[in-house]
Amino acid sequence: MKFSVTVILKKDVLDPQGKVVQNTLMNLGMDNLKSIRQGKFFEIEIDEKNQDIAQQKVDEMCKKLLVNLIIEEYKISKI
Amino acid sequence: MKFSVTVILKKDVLDPQGKVVQNTLMNLGMDNLKSIRQGKFFEIEIDEKNQDIAQQKVDEMCKKLLVNLIIEEYKISKI
Repeated sequence: MKFSVTVILKKDVLDPQGKVVQNTLMNLGMDNLKSIRQGKFFEIEIDEKNQDIAQQKVDEMCKKLLVNLIIEEYKISKI
Repeated sequence: MKFSVTVILKKDVLDPQGKVVQNTLMNLGMDNLKSIRQGKFFEIEIDEKNQDIAQQKVDEMCKKLLVNLIIEEYKISKI
């Protein structure tokens, strides 16, 4: 069973990396760019047939290692 | 108009970062984890009403700056 996890900084947290990308894109002539935020993406494959249990496992992985819950938020979806 | 872009290493390219995450998760007791790959995620907001043109712009950004087409592949989706 395959899941995708996207991790992104919370709205109130400054995203300097995204800001640099935004400035660079604007210098490249993309003047209708309003905002860009950068985050992480994980593609996770799990050996488990029950979808609920599998999703729980992925959630546990996020909380234990992949996501810093203080400054980041995440979304899990099945692929 | 808002788009999400996910960038991930092509299948044949080694993903050492993902490998480290995988080993760490297994050490944490996640023994039914089969594979994990790490990539980048962008949330892009564009000031353009026509969806086709907006998507073209995002595609151009990916090709010009965000994606290394030699080793990475990307997917654009509207949010």
